[in-house]
Amino acid sequence: MDAILVTGFEPFQGEALNPSWEVARSLAGETVGVHYRVIARRLPTVYGRAGEELVSAIREVKPRAVVCLGEAGGRTHVTPERIAINIMDARIPDNAGQKPIDEPIAPDGPAAYFSTLPIRAMVEAMCGAGIPAHISNTAGTFVCNDTFYRLMHFIAEESPGIIGGFIHVPYMTEQALHKQAPSLPLTTLVAGVRTALAVVASALGPAGVPKC
Amino acid sequence: MDAILVTGFEPFQGEALNPSWEVARSLAGETVGVHYRVIARRLPTVYGRAGEELVSAIREVKPRAVVCLGEAGGRTHVTPERIAINIMDARIPDNAGQKPIDEPIAPDGPAAYFSTLPIRAMVEAMCGAGIPAHISNTAGTFVCNDTFYRLMHFIAEESPGIIGGFIHVPYMTEQALHKQAPSLPLTTLVAGVRTALAVVASALGPAGVPKC
Amino acid sequence: MDAILVTGFEPFQGEALNPSWEVARSLAGETVGVHYRVIARRLPTVYGRAGEELVSAIREVKPRAVVCLGEAGGRTHVTPERIAINIMDARIPDNAGQKPIDEPIAPDGPAAYFSTLPIRAMVEAMCGAGIPAHISNTAGTFVCNDTFYRLMHFIAEESPGIIGGFIHVPYMTEQALHKQAPSLPLTTLVAGVRTALAVVASALGPAGVPKC
Amino acid sequence: MDAILVTGFEPFQGEALNPSWEVARSLAGETVGVHYRVIARRLPTVYGRAGEELVSAIREVKPRAVVCLGEAGGRTHVTPERIAINIMDARIPDNAGQKPIDEPIAPDGPAAYFSTLPIRAMVEAMCGAGIPAHISNTAGTFVCNDTFYRLMHFIAEESPGIIGGFIHVPYMTEQALHKQAPSLPLTTLVAGVRTALAVVASALGPAGVPKC
Repeated sequence: MDAILVTGFEPFQGEALNPSWEVARSLAGETVGVHYRVIARRLPTVYGRAGEELVSAIREVKPRAVVCLGEAGGRTHVTPERIAINIMDARIPDNAGQKPIDEPIAPDGPAAYFSTLPIRAMVEAMCGAGIPAHISNTAGTFVCNDTFYRLMHFIAEESPGIIGGFIHVPYMTEQALHKQAPSLPLTTLVAGVRTALAVVASALGPAGVPKC
Repeated sequence: MDAILVTGFEPFQGEALNPSWEVARSLAGETVGVHYRVIARRLPTVYGRAGEELVSAIREVKPRAVVCLGEAGGRTHVTPERIAINIMDARIPDNAGQKPIDEPIAPDGPAAYFSTLPIRAMVEAMCGAGIPAHISNTAGTFVCNDTFYRLMHFIAEESPGIIGGFIHVPYMTEQALHKQAPSLPLTTLVAGVRTALAVVASALGPAGVPKC
Repeated sequence: MDAILVTGFEPFQGEALNPSWEVARSLAGETVGVHYRVIARRLPTVYGRAGEELVSAIREVKPRAVVCLGEAGGRTHVTPERIAINIMDARIPDNAGQKPIDEPIAPDGPAAYFSTLPIRAMVEAMCGAGIPAHISNTAGTFVCNDTFYRLMHFIAEESPGIIGGFIHVPYMTEQALHKQAPSLPLTTLVAGVRTALAVVASALGPAGVPKC
Repeated sequence: MDAILVTGFEPFQGEALNPSWEVARSLAGETVGVHYRVIARRLPTVYGRAGEELVSAIREVKPRAVVCLGEAGGRTHVTPERIAINIMDARIPDNAGQKPIDEPIAPDGPAAYFSTLPIRAMVEAMCGAGIPAHISNTAGTFVCNDTFYRLMHFIAEESPGIIGGFIHVPYMTEQALHKQAPSLPLTTLVAGVRTALAVVASALGPAGVPKC
């Protein structure tokens, strides 16, 4: 069975968990849209290294699609990202202590890459299922965007047959108990991403049949 | 079996539903804390009239406790209210077209009444159950506060043996799909209020045994 | 010349300044509405002690009106407060390290006092002058509300001839440079409070002539 | 004297004014950084047409730098934009009734262009002057981003000797009186953009001397 690779990040900034990984591992092993199996991997919240581990996972898993998940504390909706931009700019250090300011990710790369996932259809399907979702036009400039850009750069340069993109999720309710911040239960986040993956699977068509 | 009266409001401001009533009717008929049955009633989103219907329901149901629920669009947490204030001040008309500005609810009543529900314990129980909750210090000046004040005024004047208060709930996810607003699923709101009612029941003690 | 006493607070929570005191001292010595002189005092950000120092200042200055100012970080508008409530409930320690939870300010006092300032007219005058302003229905439960309640309690018990209330102001721009928070320049805050004081003076009528 | 072209937009969505144009026209004719004169132009809030009028103005004025200004209601800070993206996606119609969904601006253009203004230095200078400012990573997908992208596309294709970019400004206080939204006075917005333009002028170096 062909695979969709879904990644989440390890916790950062003192949090005990990261909802992106909680969602990814909840979906691990599920069959999506009849033909695809979800393979889940956890990435470090570290500039550069997350992208390297992602590329290794792609080479190993050989997925038809890659959907990276990340935490966007403060957001109210599940938000497929439209675009990854060629910049690293950190307000807080990553988990390796790096704090780049206005540095390019790929000095010779383009300014940005659009997601190649069907983000509009994903949002419509999630809303249709009662999950708050909208398209986001910025993935920020922290490790999420960094990983998203490195994914799209790798696909463009070395693996044009696969599609890829990024979805930000809000805090899980457990994280927001003592914060003045919006949140959704893990079950809602999982249901939202599962719905989005079904749309991805549908866009891919039957497994094993490359789209031309 | 003794009763806890739980109320919700009808929809207003063009909404198709009101999460406060969806929660109340979800809990209708449940047994809370061994000894109490939830009786649910829907109130009109109308200044004065909601309070009148509430008082009629109290006279009919003879509950040991009254917990009114209301919608607080924009909030992120389930929020037991601390205090009801003696003012009506509307930014939008109520469902009967009334739009009072800075008018007292009870010209001879006190400035405010504190909730007599165990709001701190309710919040702690909800957080312990993974439901985002905190105490709110303002129920606003619309029909929610109006009903809350009329409830506490009635209890103080005519029915000192019962306890009462108000809980605001955020939008349900269904309402927030096309809004930039936080929300929680109905199941989460119901679980939160159920947890809060268990604390209310516990504070009441065994049914049929008035606390002195 | 009769006096209007205007107070601000010292900085707290690591801030270098408190806009409420910056506004108060900017207005110190000004003549408001022909007949009144502004006397400014700085209060400690300490539960109880602020109210004590305020009462001492009232006894010394013998003002016709008292307008306490406080900082409300995160607000966008200048906000005259409608009501003070009889509770102390701190999320952070005050400047003396006190952190009361759900304690009454005055165990025998009423649940709340309404401001006796002409808050609606103050807001309308500020908006008319191009200053963002609206009425607030909660002064919180920290030292601001505590001082406001103690002010109104003192007036009710011992000095019914004077009027009093509270105005919260947003961050000054200097404070928000590195925060994701709204702010207004000090000049705007000063212009707003000056406009509000003119309405207070107008409500008092000519100095030296008690209103009956 | 060489020119810096500064543009603002006409009002939209029922507003009576647009702070971006109020700022631009306030600065019109000023000398910036000794060597440059500000030329101000107002653009229509219309996809495509704004960019066309901007290009016409560039051809006529022959500026050394172009700084487009736009309104970002809800923002708290003056925000130089980092990047323009190749997409039109409207939640509300523009002033000509157009409401494109997910359409490219330039079908053969790159996914995005980075601003060529010294945005980091502009932000630091504004903060140093007490003006709330930070870099923004999304100019949205409405007419502001459209115009910004068309500007950068024109510069890249036809006029590589000039630098250009975009700055979003919050609501002016006059607009926010009856909204629950942050704002800054026009004088603050003008002071902020003037400070930013001085940094632009400094980056350009002496007028008439092309940088190589």
